[in-house]
Amino acid sequence: MMTVRVGVIGCGYWGPNLVRNFARTEGTSLSKICDSRFERAAKVAAQYGVRSVTEDAKAVIDSPDVDLVVIATPSLTHYELAREALAAGKHVLVMKPLATSVAHAEELVALAERKGVLLAVDHTFVYTGAVRKIKELVDAGQVGSIYYIDSVRINLGLFQSDVNVVWDLAPHDISIIDYLLDGREPESVSTIGARHVDSPTENIAYLSLRYGDQLLAHVHVNWLAPAKVRRMIVGGSKKMIIYDDVEPSEKILVYDKGVKISKNGDPGENPYQLLVEYRTGDMHAPRLDTREALALEAEQVVQCIRKGGRPVADGQAGLRVVRVLEAAEQSLARGEPVLLGQGGQGKGAIP
Amino acid sequence: MMTVRVGVIGCGYWGPNLVRNFARTEGTSLSKICDSRFERAAKVAAQYGVRSVTEDAKAVIDSPDVDLVVIATPSLTHYELAREALAAGKHVLVMKPLATSVAHAEELVALAERKGVLLAVDHTFVYTGAVRKIKELVDAGQVGSIYYIDSVRINLGLFQSDVNVVWDLAPHDISIIDYLLDGREPESVSTIGARHVDSPTENIAYLSLRYGDQLLAHVHVNWLAPAKVRRMIVGGSKKMIIYDDVEPSEKILVYDKGVKISKNGDPGENPYQLLVEYRTGDMHAPRLDTREALALEAEQVVQCIRKGGRPVADGQAGLRVVRVLEAAEQSLARGEPVLLGQGGQGKGAIP
Amino acid sequence: MMTVRVGVIGCGYWGPNLVRNFARTEGTSLSKICDSRFERAAKVAAQYGVRSVTEDAKAVIDSPDVDLVVIATPSLTHYELAREALAAGKHVLVMKPLATSVAHAEELVALAERKGVLLAVDHTFVYTGAVRKIKELVDAGQVGSIYYIDSVRINLGLFQSDVNVVWDLAPHDISIIDYLLDGREPESVSTIGARHVDSPTENIAYLSLRYGDQLLAHVHVNWLAPAKVRRMIVGGSKKMIIYDDVEPSEKILVYDKGVKISKNGDPGENPYQLLVEYRTGDMHAPRLDTREALALEAEQVVQCIRKGGRPVADGQAGLRVVRVLEAAEQSLARGEPVLLGQGGQGKGAIP
Amino acid sequence: MMTVRVGVIGCGYWGPNLVRNFARTEGTSLSKICDSRFERAAKVAAQYGVRSVTEDAKAVIDSPDVDLVVIATPSLTHYELAREALAAGKHVLVMKPLATSVAHAEELVALAERKGVLLAVDHTFVYTGAVRKIKELVDAGQVGSIYYIDSVRINLGLFQSDVNVVWDLAPHDISIIDYLLDGREPESVSTIGARHVDSPTENIAYLSLRYGDQLLAHVHVNWLAPAKVRRMIVGGSKKMIIYDDVEPSEKILVYDKGVKISKNGDPGENPYQLLVEYRTGDMHAPRLDTREALALEAEQVVQCIRKGGRPVADGQAGLRVVRVLEAAEQSLARGEPVLLGQGGQGKGAIP
Repeated sequence: MMTVRVGVIGCGYWGPNLVRNFARTEGTSLSKICDSRFERAAKVAAQYGVRSVTEDAKAVIDSPDVDLVVIATPSLTHYELAREALAAGKHVLVMKPLATSVAHAEELVALAERKGVLLAVDHTFVYTGAVRKIKELVDAGQVGSIYYIDSVRINLGLFQSDVNVVWDLAPHDISIIDYLLDGREPESVSTIGARHVDSPTENIAYLSLRYGDQLLAHVHVNWLAPAKVRRMIVGGSKKMIIYDDVEPSEKILVYDKGVKISKNGDPGENPYQLLVEYRTGDMHAPRLDTREALALEAEQVVQCIRKGGRPVADGQAGLRVVRVLEAAEQSLARGEPVLLGQGGQGKGAIP
Repeated sequence: MMTVRVGVIGCGYWGPNLVRNFARTEGTSLSKICDSRFERAAKVAAQYGVRSVTEDAKAVIDSPDVDLVVIATPSLTHYELAREALAAGKHVLVMKPLATSVAHAEELVALAERKGVLLAVDHTFVYTGAVRKIKELVDAGQVGSIYYIDSVRINLGLFQSDVNVVWDLAPHDISIIDYLLDGREPESVSTIGARHVDSPTENIAYLSLRYGDQLLAHVHVNWLAPAKVRRMIVGGSKKMIIYDDVEPSEKILVYDKGVKISKNGDPGENPYQLLVEYRTGDMHAPRLDTREALALEAEQVVQCIRKGGRPVADGQAGLRVVRVLEAAEQSLARGEPVLLGQGGQGKGAIP
Repeated sequence: MMTVRVGVIGCGYWGPNLVRNFARTEGTSLSKICDSRFERAAKVAAQYGVRSVTEDAKAVIDSPDVDLVVIATPSLTHYELAREALAAGKHVLVMKPLATSVAHAEELVALAERKGVLLAVDHTFVYTGAVRKIKELVDAGQVGSIYYIDSVRINLGLFQSDVNVVWDLAPHDISIIDYLLDGREPESVSTIGARHVDSPTENIAYLSLRYGDQLLAHVHVNWLAPAKVRRMIVGGSKKMIIYDDVEPSEKILVYDKGVKISKNGDPGENPYQLLVEYRTGDMHAPRLDTREALALEAEQVVQCIRKGGRPVADGQAGLRVVRVLEAAEQSLARGEPVLLGQGGQGKGAIP
Repeated sequence: MMTVRVGVIGCGYWGPNLVRNFARTEGTSLSKICDSRFERAAKVAAQYGVRSVTEDAKAVIDSPDVDLVVIATPSLTHYELAREALAAGKHVLVMKPLATSVAHAEELVALAERKGVLLAVDHTFVYTGAVRKIKELVDAGQVGSIYYIDSVRINLGLFQSDVNVVWDLAPHDISIIDYLLDGREPESVSTIGARHVDSPTENIAYLSLRYGDQLLAHVHVNWLAPAKVRRMIVGGSKKMIIYDDVEPSEKILVYDKGVKISKNGDPGENPYQLLVEYRTGDMHAPRLDTREALALEAEQVVQCIRKGGRPVADGQAGLRVVRVLEAAEQSLARGEPVLLGQGGQGKGAIP
């Protein structure tokens, strides 16, 4: 089978992690490393024995020695670089978010389809052992119907100037939610946020996603919190799950807890109390696969290129996440909920 | 000085706690205990040596032996009982919420004023050592400007049928926020919620309160969560506080953490990174007064009756909390943010 | 069936809890309440409608209206009161420790046998849902062979002057260990301790119990620690358990973790590394019975009196715990391990 | 000033960390990397641009291009390698423990002195921000007299075959205790331990160190525990400190808690209760220096070589730690406490 030759653009915070993982992925060879600061690229390249180093992204995109272009640059540049790479017939893996507008994301998805190449998005969390375990429990019917997903991702974080906290942090939460809900898209998004300490963009935000049928997702992202919290609650009809990513070992706690309300009963002496049965059973922390998420991601992307198939986080997933982000941004600006389109995948959703 | 003779209506979950605390408050005597189920009242009365027991609330309200009527009945009955007691010239302490509509709450406040009697609301949390300590730090300027308050109050809770989770749990959070912000009222409230497991009312809700000047408060209340969380974050310009009420001892953690953003700097090599200075200093858990909140509350109410003055949680505070709750309810129904009035205290706020 | 008429001696810290629980135990009636301070006894008696109050323990012991004497007085008085009660033909439940010397404990056990009455010891913890669950797991073979038990019971505690921290706190740990090990007695006990802040007795101590076959138990008790820790680890060949009694809900965590060492393997490249297989499976927090331990204890004691049988914490268990405590005390004094006798129950163990 | 040329022997688990830190220490150059497996050394050397790689430790020790020999090999080889390096006139930094017997450790200390070269031991923890902060508080008198130090270092750990858990893990605890107590040596050590799962050496052990004056230190080390615990309590007359090394940020909690016992008081009503005053003040988590411990250690070692002076963890410290370890080992074998010598530093203590 062919070897997938990988070129990586961007050696800032995240790029070197991608390089490290592709370096050890079977069936790949690293052929080019690029960063606008040459020394940075050179240092990373040296560590993994890559000979070709450049500060010109174009050189990667146009290189005949590159099959897969990995884009690990700031968000605002994703669209242009990905578009050029796809146009040049390359497979592309781009860091989250896929793009900074739905229009751009849709264009990338369409272009990849036209060119018959792979477009993948680095939604790292969907490759973690923790999230895959939750998905496995959901798919096996053990969680029952999902009632709500509540996600908190806060800490004293790296203030960004190109994007606000929604575009910076929420892609993680939204991509996980999208994955757990099998790509189901919310009907509306409402966001509230604020800017403090002279930040040019929002540093705190709350996103509420409505899906119909009382299904609700809520995301709290915050760059200005005193403690690091990474906690998601998945409330289901059969089980409730707490996913605490800060925990070193037991990241997933599955609670056999629930409620059953009987309406027809005779409330009897206390008319203000429902007839509610509370179920409190065991709690369970399943063992998690501890392999690095990026390693699995790199493997899957390479597999799809070599053998066909679509990665979990393909362009469509990237687009769906961007739809929510753009709606969240609009809601922030308008101060009211924003409806998404009829929820069709790839249909161009924002009204 | 006169002895304040106390009559208590309602011996369900909370009433006995009020009885217990008034029983040991100096300058009071318990004169009447009432519950619609006589035996319940009788049992409580026996424990504290109260001779007069009744199942008729009217008998308490009209009794010449009662100066202060304490109302610990379901929310929907607060207004009527309080109105009658005030009309009868009694001082009144009513459990939260003061009433279930702004109109009712305003009427009670006005009536108390007209009658020259005290109207107090049992906002228990503002009397806790933890909340008083936060308030003390805020008042002393140690927290700086408050940027945001984030409150989470979730657990597998007692589903109520007369009120939804907003009216049941959020009064705690809103009364604390009201206290910390010195009665400042939000400009708008938006709420999102959902009903699950055949609950007739919302069992999960998120409230966002906007105050202008980028000040934001957010409350997550939930009867259907796998773990008990009672955590409030107060983000200030000088300090950030985490108040974890589930912690047995160190409930208040004060973090000397913050951020300073310099706009004019030359961002240099990375144009996407702001020039941000992060401050990470000591963390501090001040010793808290461990006296029972209800004991302090009972003392303060009795003091105000005997010597004049207003308790921290007076009718105005109760009204402000009801304004937010009513707006939250409306937002829930309309699916959009609801503006409050010009924020004047007691001015009748909902448009 | 006969009603067991209960007389309680001692209304200090713990006595009222025993009264409260016997008051609601089927088949019992509280007939006499005693405390050296009459008002204290009177107050407790009033709460439970007991008519007969006394400050004279003798009056309880000799009363024809008392079948079961419950002794909740300071440790040093247990022996004398229990002896008199047993001699008077009463059943006896005595707070831990059964007595403050092995000789005394043996005498009580023998006396009870001679008189054909029940002698029970209030080893409260063995009646908790948490400890019973651990025992259930051990008995079902799920834990495998027990390798070690490590118990930490520390906090800023109530300094006692009549007994040191070993006699005050360690009976809890030792009685749990005794229960989990089915009454197996250690071969030797070594204790190290110290006295601080002018305490007349040890306020910190470490007990090591050797059982042969590499089975080890260790107890850290401490009145002078900054935080409250109540944590026991049970290390078994199949499972390892952490029992954290400070946790409000998930007190028992069962870890499917372990190690297998293969000796014959070829250590190969690293001769200093064993061929060790580590097993890290799921973690599990079983639902616990949340009934109050004292309620179960009172029920069991009453059942045994009415129908025969022995309670979990009978005189023999009390004696075995005292044997360890006396040996621990001797080790503390001598500065070396103290051997226990041949481990026969009731054989008079200290050499 | 001269550049310190560093040769590193051993590229297993820990060696590469030492290489990485010396690589960035000012005033040093890495001149030789050695490992018995050549490729392992070669890989590390490549990463830091070191040209000279060898599998022969002798080649490092005898090299005229090496001033400082860093020894990161298994414990049993420390003595021989360090002795040869010192004999060759090199400065030496050796991983803990300095040697596996007091006789060997003493010989190394004496040899270093005779040769006029530096002998340092990699007691990493004494260079951490956390331990340095505790030491600072102790030295400033804020902790008062130290009453006891309790250290727990347990997890499902790497079973070793050359040394037992005492020699593997306890050097960390003992070196910290030695540092906090300014090199004061215990009068006696008693150890209890056990071997499980066919381990050829003890995998669990409890060490008790007596210092006279009721000062006590206790260490629990364990390779077979279900959870990772790294917690030290320092109980002082003025403050009590909990150092939790597993905590990501607030590792040091300083409690203003304590007890004062008045003996002459009239115990009054309860003769069994001392007149004890409990002090419960604020808790405080000081900001810690987050620089990597090994970086500081490398810097200090290099400074001492260049400018004179002794590092915190010099040969004497290493010797004192070995004395405790050897006594602990003897106590384990004999089943009784082992007295150390008169406590003189370097005097050859084991009787």
